[in-house]
Amino acid sequence: MRFVELIRKKRQGGELTKEELQRLVDAYTRGEVPDYQMSAFLMAVYFQSMTSAELSAWTGAMLHSGEVLDLSTVDGAKVDKHSTGGVGDKVSLILAPLAAAAGLKVPMISGRGLGHTGGTLDKLESIPGFDVNQSVERFLELVDTLGLGLIGQTGEIAPADKKLYALRDVTATVECIPLIASSIMSKKLAEGIDALVLDVKVGSGAFMKSMDRARELAQTMIGIGKAMDRPVRALITDMDQPLGLTIGNSLEVIESIETLRGEGPQDLTDLTVELVLEMLDVAGKVTDREASRNHLVELLHDGTALSVFEKIIEAQGGDASICADPSRLPLAKNTTVLEAWESGHISRIQAESVGIAAMELGAGRRRKEDDIDPGVGLVMEAKRGARVEKGQPLVTIYYNDDKELEKVRQMLREAIVIGEAPEDVPPLILERLS
Amino acid sequence: MRFVELIRKKRQGGELTKEELQRLVDAYTRGEVPDYQMSAFLMAVYFQSMTSAELSAWTGAMLHSGEVLDLSTVDGAKVDKHSTGGVGDKVSLILAPLAAAAGLKVPMISGRGLGHTGGTLDKLESIPGFDVNQSVERFLELVDTLGLGLIGQTGEIAPADKKLYALRDVTATVECIPLIASSIMSKKLAEGIDALVLDVKVGSGAFMKSMDRARELAQTMIGIGKAMDRPVRALITDMDQPLGLTIGNSLEVIESIETLRGEGPQDLTDLTVELVLEMLDVAGKVTDREASRNHLVELLHDGTALSVFEKIIEAQGGDASICADPSRLPLAKNTTVLEAWESGHISRIQAESVGIAAMELGAGRRRKEDDIDPGVGLVMEAKRGARVEKGQPLVTIYYNDDKELEKVRQMLREAIVIGEAPEDVPPLILERLS
Repeated sequence: MRFVELIRKKRQGGELTKEELQRLVDAYTRGEVPDYQMSAFLMAVYFQSMTSAELSAWTGAMLHSGEVLDLSTVDGAKVDKHSTGGVGDKVSLILAPLAAAAGLKVPMISGRGLGHTGGTLDKLESIPGFDVNQSVERFLELVDTLGLGLIGQTGEIAPADKKLYALRDVTATVECIPLIASSIMSKKLAEGIDALVLDVKVGSGAFMKSMDRARELAQTMIGIGKAMDRPVRALITDMDQPLGLTIGNSLEVIESIETLRGEGPQDLTDLTVELVLEMLDVAGKVTDREASRNHLVELLHDGTALSVFEKIIEAQGGDASICADPSRLPLAKNTTVLEAWESGHISRIQAESVGIAAMELGAGRRRKEDDIDPGVGLVMEAKRGARVEKGQPLVTIYYNDDKELEKVRQMLREAIVIGEAPEDVPPLILERLS
Repeated sequence: MRFVELIRKKRQGGELTKEELQRLVDAYTRGEVPDYQMSAFLMAVYFQSMTSAELSAWTGAMLHSGEVLDLSTVDGAKVDKHSTGGVGDKVSLILAPLAAAAGLKVPMISGRGLGHTGGTLDKLESIPGFDVNQSVERFLELVDTLGLGLIGQTGEIAPADKKLYALRDVTATVECIPLIASSIMSKKLAEGIDALVLDVKVGSGAFMKSMDRARELAQTMIGIGKAMDRPVRALITDMDQPLGLTIGNSLEVIESIETLRGEGPQDLTDLTVELVLEMLDVAGKVTDREASRNHLVELLHDGTALSVFEKIIEAQGGDASICADPSRLPLAKNTTVLEAWESGHISRIQAESVGIAAMELGAGRRRKEDDIDPGVGLVMEAKRGARVEKGQPLVTIYYNDDKELEKVRQMLREAIVIGEAPEDVPPLILERLS
């Protein structure tokens, strides 16, 4: 097979066979197809897309390019959640213990943050001692005994995706729905799960800026799931303003603990409960949605979910006493407050700018190789729709270095819009697809 | 400048600035932009094309990536011709001496054949001793004193194009008019010419299969010429059947000598004369087209053009006595004849298949690294429109190895269509653009 002919076929809008895609991915993973041919192919895919049949073959080839976890010895429904990423999105830290408390098995393999978005691994690592690198054996044991495991992607999971993602990043082929969908699905399905729930973010702080694009991504992933016999459920949720009140790693762990205790902000609590409800539902564990929802809220209030979080922290080498005493988490030395410059109603909190402001403080990475500071970040003291009076605190800024402080204040000043009249706040959950 | 942003800009249909394109080409030539970024960029160009401003900046950057010949010390109008390639196209061998005989200076840098098409360098190299590798100084001297030089592309001429062409070949980005046009124009303008005449072939044996594509390519190159203040004239000519009667390197040199003597086939003679007429015209040397045309025919008949060919052969180390005695050229040991299988009129000679048949005999290259046999080839004993009787010779096959002979006979049998009634033969010169 001459790979240039496969590039030409895709360029012309033709449909590649399962065998052709399989050989392309395999040869690329082995280094037999050079990067310059694959990048031309990816750009052709950007313009010509992929058919459903191509997408499932392509995803399957990436999935099987490495180890696929075997959870057959683990009893119970193995379900995970994936978020397309946003600002202040600490849902995984609350959702995994809550879902485990509700009887599901959650083999969660997460990523790191980049640009304006945070990553679950970075948040977990702000917990002193917490080790996201566990052997596959230990990971399976954790899922089996505690109902969850929280680790990072290993070299053995979907190596084709790892290599392809690095190439897409430098060839302007990231923003392509078939490639995004297949990348996510190959990694998630390699976890050996029975079903998956997606949190597809839409809005200024999300990768999908429009409802149409978000819906297309969700439907593409649902389609791949169908072809692979793994039910996928998707919620499309608002990421026009940050989720919850905090942005920054330690700050988000603290907020997660509060939420696990039933004392978190409404939007974060609601979204987490709804996502776990979908996880239960897609696993066939829901007969009465209202009763299940109430049960989940109860698991937060009675401390069950929090105790699962304590156990997994301890099992992965972390200091579980942070749950009782969050002050043990590293926090920045200094704080300063951005005050409302006029009275009115908050009509906008531009999530992407808030995310970039937090990144400038050191909470996130501009480039993959950057270090992050777990202690810095932002606490939103008022959210969209709130009435504020001039001089009232809008954001508390946690910082260690005042070098970027003025810039950050300016960014926040521009990200937040105070209007005269109250405006309707759009719902957090915009659509549910299956 | 982050090159990934330039790829993204082109992908989105944006227009790159002259500086951006210049830096992209420069950095690629120096090896600072990796192949995998350039191939993604080229595929984006395939889908999004380039504006006129982009094309002249891109071509200019390729042109100036290496040496641009300085012909300012050479008196007279420096004009060259470029053909987009076809089957039996030996025009350059006749045209360059004829144009020089008519007073033009022709600094001709040619290429090799690939696939079904032949190359001028291969034809010249069938002349014993002929050396297409001359130093730039010697080349300029030949152009100055004899009115022409016939060499191959050196490493110093448009190295960016050389590198880009090799990449396009393996990434399915060859068939893209802006990239074809800029590749041709950068090489031709590096010859230091004042003006250029294009022979854009259309039909089964050409790269452009439709009149629309041929016209688009011609107009694109004319546009680049305009932007660079180098007048370009284009003839769109028929390449649905082979040009002249011979295909194969020595055979084509013999036919060229006959044509230079005024005894060549009508189509080849006519096309060559018309192209030289355009070269004279674009250089402002024509007041009366008919008189100029007659003069050119006279230069063939009176031996002037042939004597220029003899001189350049001798000057480039070749055996000029082949002009008087073509039997000194290497010719295949064996011949066999394909006879007409029925009586009728030849309604079709599929040029691409004939070219591939000649390649199978060894006259051309399947891959760049293949060797060729100068002595093999085909002589068409009848052309489109001719009346043939059953048993009459259609093609004489010159071969050294009978391994592929049956295959070649079969290919020719399928390439030639004998119909009952005579059909109109389309004109050789289809359109003239400037």
